[in-house]
Amino acid sequence: MNFFLETLQVLLLSIWYNVESFVHLFVPRRKKSIAGEVVLITGSGSGIGRLMAQEFAALGTVLVLWDINQDGMKETARLAKLSGASRVHHYLCDCSDKNEVYRVSDQVKREVGDVSILVNNAGIVTGKKFMDAPDSLIEKTMEVNTMAHFWTYKAFLPAMIANNHGHLVSISSSAGLIGVNGLADYCASKFAAVGFAESVGLELLATGKDGIKTTIVCPYFINTGMFDGCQTKWPTLLPILNPEYVAKKIINAVLTDQVFLLLPKSIYLITALKNILPMKQGILLGQYLGAFSLMDTFKGRSKKQE
Amino acid sequence: MNFFLETLQVLLLSIWYNVESFVHLFVPRRKKSIAGEVVLITGSGSGIGRLMAQEFAALGTVLVLWDINQDGMKETARLAKLSGASRVHHYLCDCSDKNEVYRVSDQVKREVGDVSILVNNAGIVTGKKFMDAPDSLIEKTMEVNTMAHFWTYKAFLPAMIANNHGHLVSISSSAGLIGVNGLADYCASKFAAVGFAESVGLELLATGKDGIKTTIVCPYFINTGMFDGCQTKWPTLLPILNPEYVAKKIINAVLTDQVFLLLPKSIYLITALKNILPMKQGILLGQYLGAFSLMDTFKGRSKKQE
Repeated sequence: MNFFLETLQVLLLSIWYNVESFVHLFVPRRKKSIAGEVVLITGSGSGIGRLMAQEFAALGTVLVLWDINQDGMKETARLAKLSGASRVHHYLCDCSDKNEVYRVSDQVKREVGDVSILVNNAGIVTGKKFMDAPDSLIEKTMEVNTMAHFWTYKAFLPAMIANNHGHLVSISSSAGLIGVNGLADYCASKFAAVGFAESVGLELLATGKDGIKTTIVCPYFINTGMFDGCQTKWPTLLPILNPEYVAKKIINAVLTDQVFLLLPKSIYLITALKNILPMKQGILLGQYLGAFSLMDTFKGRSKKQE
Repeated sequence: MNFFLETLQVLLLSIWYNVESFVHLFVPRRKKSIAGEVVLITGSGSGIGRLMAQEFAALGTVLVLWDINQDGMKETARLAKLSGASRVHHYLCDCSDKNEVYRVSDQVKREVGDVSILVNNAGIVTGKKFMDAPDSLIEKTMEVNTMAHFWTYKAFLPAMIANNHGHLVSISSSAGLIGVNGLADYCASKFAAVGFAESVGLELLATGKDGIKTTIVCPYFINTGMFDGCQTKWPTLLPILNPEYVAKKIINAVLTDQVFLLLPKSIYLITALKNILPMKQGILLGQYLGAFSLMDTFKGRSKKQE
């Protein structure tokens, strides 16, 4: 196609996509059915993972739960069955260990079948100033929050590619879009998760595998215990999120094939501004919004909760 | 401070910073002197690393070169001396190996002294579709392009903090801001480098260490061999960059304490648009700009060049 025609086509389609987006501000998008899909959720023994399991259960899916916490996972399985899951399988799996991820993936494929909705949700946080963070925790943060995504893709993406059908859900964070004081290793791992999911998503599109969707979730702090103690300065603009609300939004994003889900909505604005404003103004606004002191009162999940 | 006063202050400063930014579109920023600073450049045996070494040499710095390529590093040392470096030290160091990074860092501190300008430049690229990329190369990409930044910060940041003086330069990539088909592991590692450098930069500001500056460099493809074979579709908008040009721009960014340096300038626009446009339009524009086929003709650095 020549330059003129290609440019004209891009312009017309651009207008059309903007009209479509505008209309969908008022008209909800059509939801796909996921009944019968095999949904794997890592880190589903507590928090958002458990709540997503309950939501997916209510939609008639087969659930595969992974966690390092056996008791938490059993409780999730019980709740998922109550919510209507046809089958629930659970596996102890430490996502920081590549070999274990591969071993348990093989077991899932043998015992349950191919996973068609992969939710990379397991995540950990060090919660220390970078110089105070032990190397072992920094490495583990990268292994769980980033590298486990690589290995689960390696394990479950081939079947999705063969069927040109599936959904890859990456639970990242607003700290995967904007750097945060006191979360350097966490930010590195969550930025990486975003870049990885985005790139593979484009690779699938480019290779014609448009039946495999990607959803990248970037929520602000959620009230699940993981970030216990953290305080938000302007709760109207940047509220600490309710876990049930986040789980419902994630499921809705999956059902409507939404690629990026940022929560709360103000994160869209803040992310956009970050790339446009002068650096000094960005830092000023960060201070104003309390982004510099978010982690000052961090306590995190108590041992008992884990 | 109360809400009203704080908001007013933010508004007034915001206006001032925008005026300042506008003025600096026409009036160059003041450059700092870095004569006598100890500059460590990882991966300085070739490419941009070598060119930066020559530029830093001409500014009267003490140079510390790291690379896995002894011959390349010696050639860089020779060129740096020609360019006027007072002292040039070079060390074999494999940045994929944490223990080696720590060992060589200790050696540098003993033999040369504290590093005050740390340039994390070493980088590798797999250049394969994600499912075709061997795990070992994916892991190595994360180790060199991301984790080595952690360990060099651990090694050299304490002295900078003690003196409240230093500069952290992270050579990331435009692929650290925008996902690219065919570069999933590279994007993960480069996104992580951006998030990490940004977070530690904010941490230093928040803890009052404002004498330590951060510069994050995100260039499009550079004609150094690393991305040999790659073709750009619209060379006017997204030219394959000239390495000498990039090196000069990086040094200029360091001398003017510029936080983000995106090259070419169109990357600023593309990054900003990515967060604003409807997803479908973003993908459409990506295809239009050739972002889907960038890696189709990738050959990379030949063994001989390495």
